[in-house]
Amino acid sequence: MAECKTKYTVRFEPGNTEIVVTEGTNLMQAAITAGVHINASCGGAGTCGTCKVLVKQGRVDFLKSDKVAEIESNNGIRQSCRCTVLSDLVVEVPASSRLETSVLDREKMSSAAAGQTLATGWTFAPPLEKRYLELTQPGAGDNVSDLTRLLRCIDKKCGYLRVDVEFSILKTLGEILRKADWKVTATFLENNGQRKLINVEQGDTRKTNYSLAFDIGTTAVRGQILDLNRGRVIEQSIDYNGQISYGADVISRITQCRKPGGLENLQKAVVETINKLTSRMVNSSKINVKELNHVVIAANTVMVHLLLGLDPQYLRLSPYVPAVANPPLVKASELGIGAAAHSYVSIVPSVSSYVGGDIVAGILGSGVYQRTKVTLYIDIGTNGEIVVGNRDWMVTSAASAGPTFEGGGIKCGMLAVTGAIEDFELDEDGEPVIGVIGGGKPSGICGSGIINLAAVLLKKGLITQAGKYTTEKNDTRIRSGEDGYEYVLATQKESATGKDIVFTEIDMTNLVRAKAALYAGYQTLVKSVGSRMESVDQVVIAGTFGSRLNMENAISIGLLPDLPREKFIFIGNGSLLGARLISFSNDLLEQSGKVAAMMTNLELSESAEFMSNYTAAMFLPHTDGTLFPSVRLEETR
Amino acid sequence: MAECKTKYTVRFEPGNTEIVVTEGTNLMQAAITAGVHINASCGGAGTCGTCKVLVKQGRVDFLKSDKVAEIESNNGIRQSCRCTVLSDLVVEVPASSRLETSVLDREKMSSAAAGQTLATGWTFAPPLEKRYLELTQPGAGDNVSDLTRLLRCIDKKCGYLRVDVEFSILKTLGEILRKADWKVTATFLENNGQRKLINVEQGDTRKTNYSLAFDIGTTAVRGQILDLNRGRVIEQSIDYNGQISYGADVISRITQCRKPGGLENLQKAVVETINKLTSRMVNSSKINVKELNHVVIAANTVMVHLLLGLDPQYLRLSPYVPAVANPPLVKASELGIGAAAHSYVSIVPSVSSYVGGDIVAGILGSGVYQRTKVTLYIDIGTNGEIVVGNRDWMVTSAASAGPTFEGGGIKCGMLAVTGAIEDFELDEDGEPVIGVIGGGKPSGICGSGIINLAAVLLKKGLITQAGKYTTEKNDTRIRSGEDGYEYVLATQKESATGKDIVFTEIDMTNLVRAKAALYAGYQTLVKSVGSRMESVDQVVIAGTFGSRLNMENAISIGLLPDLPREKFIFIGNGSLLGARLISFSNDLLEQSGKVAAMMTNLELSESAEFMSNYTAAMFLPHTDGTLFPSVRLEETR
Repeated sequence: MAECKTKYTVRFEPGNTEIVVTEGTNLMQAAITAGVHINASCGGAGTCGTCKVLVKQGRVDFLKSDKVAEIESNNGIRQSCRCTVLSDLVVEVPASSRLETSVLDREKMSSAAAGQTLATGWTFAPPLEKRYLELTQPGAGDNVSDLTRLLRCIDKKCGYLRVDVEFSILKTLGEILRKADWKVTATFLENNGQRKLINVEQGDTRKTNYSLAFDIGTTAVRGQILDLNRGRVIEQSIDYNGQISYGADVISRITQCRKPGGLENLQKAVVETINKLTSRMVNSSKINVKELNHVVIAANTVMVHLLLGLDPQYLRLSPYVPAVANPPLVKASELGIGAAAHSYVSIVPSVSSYVGGDIVAGILGSGVYQRTKVTLYIDIGTNGEIVVGNRDWMVTSAASAGPTFEGGGIKCGMLAVTGAIEDFELDEDGEPVIGVIGGGKPSGICGSGIINLAAVLLKKGLITQAGKYTTEKNDTRIRSGEDGYEYVLATQKESATGKDIVFTEIDMTNLVRAKAALYAGYQTLVKSVGSRMESVDQVVIAGTFGSRLNMENAISIGLLPDLPREKFIFIGNGSLLGARLISFSNDLLEQSGKVAAMMTNLELSESAEFMSNYTAAMFLPHTDGTLFPSVRLEETR
Repeated sequence: MAECKTKYTVRFEPGNTEIVVTEGTNLMQAAITAGVHINASCGGAGTCGTCKVLVKQGRVDFLKSDKVAEIESNNGIRQSCRCTVLSDLVVEVPASSRLETSVLDREKMSSAAAGQTLATGWTFAPPLEKRYLELTQPGAGDNVSDLTRLLRCIDKKCGYLRVDVEFSILKTLGEILRKADWKVTATFLENNGQRKLINVEQGDTRKTNYSLAFDIGTTAVRGQILDLNRGRVIEQSIDYNGQISYGADVISRITQCRKPGGLENLQKAVVETINKLTSRMVNSSKINVKELNHVVIAANTVMVHLLLGLDPQYLRLSPYVPAVANPPLVKASELGIGAAAHSYVSIVPSVSSYVGGDIVAGILGSGVYQRTKVTLYIDIGTNGEIVVGNRDWMVTSAASAGPTFEGGGIKCGMLAVTGAIEDFELDEDGEPVIGVIGGGKPSGICGSGIINLAAVLLKKGLITQAGKYTTEKNDTRIRSGEDGYEYVLATQKESATGKDIVFTEIDMTNLVRAKAALYAGYQTLVKSVGSRMESVDQVVIAGTFGSRLNMENAISIGLLPDLPREKFIFIGNGSLLGARLISFSNDLLEQSGKVAAMMTNLELSESAEFMSNYTAAMFLPHTDGTLFPSVRLEETR
């Protein structure tokens, strides 16, 4: 690498992670490279203001922004995406910028971006509620039963006259009331207008109240522990769905269920993944499993069936009827999910066999169903779901993109977890500069890394528009490997695996197919509702890409449409966002069924237009260059 | 035995049970002796009309009765309690007179007796309901989920918009709907205003719809299988509560729970008894366990706690607080009760630690809570509960009578089952004439047998008013045995056990104590509400005494007050009656909580007046003879 610029050390607090960067490096980029997570809802476009940090020592060059108040600015607060390193730095990443910013904080923000990105009009009132109660002690004149006494107090203090009491409560109620000197905390779960009393604990336990939210994808499962008191994400984790060993896509999973014990195996596999994530999060957060009072799960329809142990066979047979679209509450223990013994699982309702609760959750969370103007919602995952609509109508479809964007089916692909290459640039000498999640040596490449890699290689003319490597430029990183040409992202010495990390031409073909399916999908869907891409007011992009998705690169390879950049909003994992919001708001839980009912499913797979659009999109960015006027490739200059 | 009268053979149909009796024998008495059960709500007083039979061949002498219509009379219908045998007979016992007459039939009767005896104003609409549904088949234009389709049909056909769906339904729903060609029967359970969907079956299964009703007493457990379509008792059974081996009374059971595993053992013991009765009833009725859709249980508060596995210790510690008075629904399987996997257990609410759901059930079933005039309700069981009141107020107390009237604590005592001596007379030679349940040789003596024995021995001067045997009359049946003097009811040759069946002086003392506790109980209670025994308008007697209780004998030993005989009504097992009515009527299930709330508990055990009344009642019939003006004893003549 060339060393023509001064290098500076940036230390991020808390955690004291240090990284050496060249002068002028973007501070957010430095954080990403160092593996320090800073939120950036807008993908680093400078519009959301969620990436604010405190520069405690040293100098940065920064652009003024209406996202940073003058008093904040005077105190050293900067938008990390809008400043560059001018000296050694000590930077504090405030809690609000670490991990994903809590929904509440977002909700409080008055900025247009936040207002546009998330559902509005709901209050923070989780379906799971703890209430502290001081009961009057029994005496000769008042010796009603323990349960009657408790319910009487609940009626008086909370105004809840009709409460559905879990039988299990009774087992320990007498002992708890007496040990606690009649001062207890009651835990309620509201569902479908009914309020269940699911737990009674000694004393005031309100300060600890947590829930789990999961997105169960065909390829990966993402989980979060939520703090129901503060509306915050406490911990999160991601891993491959254990069902992958039974088949990569939903069809092969459904087929697997025809075998004896197949459904049971798949059910167990996904529950094991859920429990693995939970253990991991519980261990790192030191939160007691017994304090995980509620579980909200968003998933596609097949994943819901497999999780619940329901035969999915009719999902793939015309007329594609699910066993259930809006499952009733089920005890976590009944599914084998490790959470508090009294906890229940709420599952986000789905639309149809092919449009699941993951999409409903995303639409719910991003507020697409509330807006007057037309939004295009794109979920970049294995199923590649797309929604077009507004508060009056919504049509939806799935354009099976495959697992590419989750690192699946890619030689050195991996999820956006520690060790994944999520960013890629070439320096002036044409040498790769990689950003690795968590810093350190890379283990593989994740979805956002793949998009950035492809975009850069395309721009620099190292791959053709058909996604083939070119050797014209004699780039030393392009070589002939087992699977044909491949690009060496990291040599075995530079990698954490001790093996070269490469991106093969087959991988590139998978990427082209995946992005073509998605692009053709929303192209077809938008046209099917009599609209044009330019008429779309907003594009909401969902998907798990570590901390951010480089929109410019995604557009330049034709994954996203070439629309004015201010129309784009990246919400991260939309399914998990919706599950989390439902954890936080009973209003939204109740609205989820209505949102699902609003959505009309359109079968793309049988559409001739989709097939022709798909073929036309098998080019980077597209066979029709006029669709991507802003994309300029090096060789065309 | 003397043979001074002609003997005739009476054959009862169906079943062709034959018995040889002397001319002039009461036909009901003959039936009882033959072990043929005929209902007799009024205890053979001729007032209820439930004991009607058809005399097909032979002659009887009979009293005319307004309970038998002229057309019935012309066709040979007779009230069995009001006719005597004049020749060999063939008698058909109609279904309506066999077992206990169904509640519905009673309810239809316009007679004053029936109107007075049972709760009115409820409709036959069990909380458990089956509905047959023909769903529209799915098609390309209508591919909602199986569950949505089912709920849509339920809403349309039944008008049930809000149904609580059991998660377990989903497991098989898809397969059932398709195998059944979308024609299914849905089973609902209504509880506390909520309607649960608990089962879905292929095709129309409405013709089989059964439930279980149980009375769990401290000494004995009684169960019935009910036909929810016809409001009838299909089968019934009784056995000792398996908990007896852990102690005879509730206090020793509560003490048992302080030992490790004690509560678990008691819980299992009673569930085993329940399951034993169920197996027996299922075997004889040929009803499939899977068709037992609901279980209603009435029991005293301690029994409820033990059944539910709840620590009963606070029930016996001041201020006597139960863990629960009105338990929530619980799955039968969760308690280990063998019924349909989807069935739930409804437990009749209790009033306090000492006044349980068994009494609430009796009050509910007998309609005491609906009448304007004051009723005295006496439950002759181990706890000896008493209620005085009307529709405006009710006070209640328990006068621990001990298990004597259920054959407990008596040397040759037994429950009122086949082989039990339930009737006793002396012939002209002073030789015993015994009535054995089921006919044949006796195995022991049950509660009604004990009452009848004591009354006859007292009348004939074979025992003193203090309950001591006298040898003055040189009765050959009175002898000195292991436990002092004893009366030989049957010699070892005459008995089914191969041993002499005797009634000892200790047994007699137990009887005196038991009846004294009961008498003192209602004496004290009636006075405590500012009333007098003579002001009581009606006396409802509950207790399990086979087919009947001889009121006259019960009065003559001072067990029942000496009031005009028409004030007495014997309802059999009141607890089971209430449980059965609740099985038949959701109205009554909903009213049960209100009935419990109406009742005020009075602690007799701490009352000095009760103790003095108790001591005064330790005499047959009483130390104060003026309280029993109609009782004439032989020696006083």
